[in-house]
Amino acid sequence: MGTISVLGAGSWGTALAMVLADNGHAVRLWARRKEQIEEINQRHTNESYLPGVTLSETIVGCASMEQAVEDTDAILLVVPTKAMRETVAELRKVLKKKVVMIHASKGIEPGTHKRISEMIEEEMGGTELLEAVVVLSGPSHAEEVSQRQPTTVTVSSKCHQAAEFAQDLFMNQRFRVYTNPDLIGVEIGGALKNIIALVCGLTQGLGMGDNPKAAIMTRGLAEIARLGVKLGANPLTFAGLSGLGDLIVTCTSIHSRNFRAGKLIGEGKTLDEVLDSMGMVVEGIQTTKATHELAVECGVDMPITASLHAVLFDGVQPKDAAEGLMGRVKKHEVEQLHTDIVDAAYRQS
Amino acid sequence: MGTISVLGAGSWGTALAMVLADNGHAVRLWARRKEQIEEINQRHTNESYLPGVTLSETIVGCASMEQAVEDTDAILLVVPTKAMRETVAELRKVLKKKVVMIHASKGIEPGTHKRISEMIEEEMGGTELLEAVVVLSGPSHAEEVSQRQPTTVTVSSKCHQAAEFAQDLFMNQRFRVYTNPDLIGVEIGGALKNIIALVCGLTQGLGMGDNPKAAIMTRGLAEIARLGVKLGANPLTFAGLSGLGDLIVTCTSIHSRNFRAGKLIGEGKTLDEVLDSMGMVVEGIQTTKATHELAVECGVDMPITASLHAVLFDGVQPKDAAEGLMGRVKKHEVEQLHTDIVDAAYRQS
Repeated sequence: MGTISVLGAGSWGTALAMVLADNGHAVRLWARRKEQIEEINQRHTNESYLPGVTLSETIVGCASMEQAVEDTDAILLVVPTKAMRETVAELRKVLKKKVVMIHASKGIEPGTHKRISEMIEEEMGGTELLEAVVVLSGPSHAEEVSQRQPTTVTVSSKCHQAAEFAQDLFMNQRFRVYTNPDLIGVEIGGALKNIIALVCGLTQGLGMGDNPKAAIMTRGLAEIARLGVKLGANPLTFAGLSGLGDLIVTCTSIHSRNFRAGKLIGEGKTLDEVLDSMGMVVEGIQTTKATHELAVECGVDMPITASLHAVLFDGVQPKDAAEGLMGRVKKHEVEQLHTDIVDAAYRQS
Repeated sequence: MGTISVLGAGSWGTALAMVLADNGHAVRLWARRKEQIEEINQRHTNESYLPGVTLSETIVGCASMEQAVEDTDAILLVVPTKAMRETVAELRKVLKKKVVMIHASKGIEPGTHKRISEMIEEEMGGTELLEAVVVLSGPSHAEEVSQRQPTTVTVSSKCHQAAEFAQDLFMNQRFRVYTNPDLIGVEIGGALKNIIALVCGLTQGLGMGDNPKAAIMTRGLAEIARLGVKLGANPLTFAGLSGLGDLIVTCTSIHSRNFRAGKLIGEGKTLDEVLDSMGMVVEGIQTTKATHELAVECGVDMPITASLHAVLFDGVQPKDAAEGLMGRVKKHEVEQLHTDIVDAAYRQS
């Protein structure tokens, strides 16, 4: 058993810290806010993020990043996408040994269109202090992980040994960890399902039912896979836990904040009103922006993403966007899917 | 616009009759119970199945099958799997012209392991009166179709012209119909998702959350695809509306009776108690029996189906089955999926 540093004490960072503590690791949980660290160390709670949950005393809060990562055996990064570069830049200054960095964040950077692992590699500037980057992703609401509900996730890395190292850190009877060598597919699936969750929430906010939601999830996974394959992902990854599994949980669960944000937009709230009322980061908003830019750049057809982009950033009414999506021309389903995904799979093999 | 005969006036048969009536067809809706036919013709309602819904006057109830199919342009069969052979045998005796038969039922026959289209072909005994069989399947709760919620479905047939004929009959702005040439895949996906819905309901009845449910749906779709490919289906069909789409809607919607039945079992009710309390056919129960037999016969690994079979027919406790499913050994996710599905796809190409 070792010492693991968890940077980011939101609901997901805290829940993953609990898994690590359950497995016997000493956990150092870093956050910027002093009051939050005091709460973790004195009351062993993190009420704003995981209300009603008691943390193990082997989870120690650290307000100093330097202390948090001193002599650590691995670093888990769980900060919002937009805080990732700044956090890693700060980390690089205080880190004194080479480690594996695992991240469990979900997004694409607007402008650069980089995935999280690429942002981490860039900010670490070479391999002197970075053994390898691993992503951890899958159908896993933090609230349920903190209640020790059975949960399954995927870890992926360019370095297979690093992925297995991460698998061993987290694996237990209630938290099952699978490896998948397709880093691009795992990161793309995790980031882009938030777009589909926003659209599913939006249709619910408009009073639409489960039939249209299922259609959007099915078509949504197809368009995620379409872009993923263009970027070099294995199309099969999208049928797995970090693709389909995470999509399901995010689009159908009351816990999903992207779904909730979409629902408010469907009910007629403006984007600013929604962001004000959520109080937490809604990753899907910026991911929609980045993904739409990327799809246009790559020439990939992503009608659901484009429709949401038009609602969020171009003033299109949610109702018009949803109706436009459902009224597309008659097509042969498998022909379309075949062109999109399988031909690509065949080309790869 | 023509005359279409709908055999079976449950919720799904009635909702599809409404789509046909919306498209300007004269619909003859057959059912065995005289009082139900009187209700349809006098009050234009079918309260036991679609409460609160008013039917068009162009939907005419028929208690006589002979009258219902006289000079018809197509027949839509929507009876439970276990009533299919008897209904088609009766139909064959009174039918006087060759027609396309569309079915919208979801099951596999225990004992023979036949799909619905195979049962229809067998009972029609040759092509003298049967132009072709078409299946209609997809994420489509009857209640929502009757409310004219946007809905997408797939039609499939060995005969492409017959599939396009069915597509034209049903297609409208709110009911989008796609064709897919993979009859086996469409029928298998529609039938087997009820097994996964029962298991998802069971986990909810046990108090488990959305994380395990998403894992079961993901793994469930993989095992459905595994069997489907062995039987000659195109693996891609399972990523489409009649596979993934229908799975999502059945496993996550309050309207699904298979999900509700599974939930009651998870809460500790016996199978007999559940069947008594449902008042409608729960197709997934017999489908579990047939599929488990078929999987054993074909040597296909279907752990979720096997676990449910053990609960339903061998007295295993739901809690033990669910825990067994979540605690399987550490594996590489894509390796497993690859072996299961993609290798098969490559072999087919």
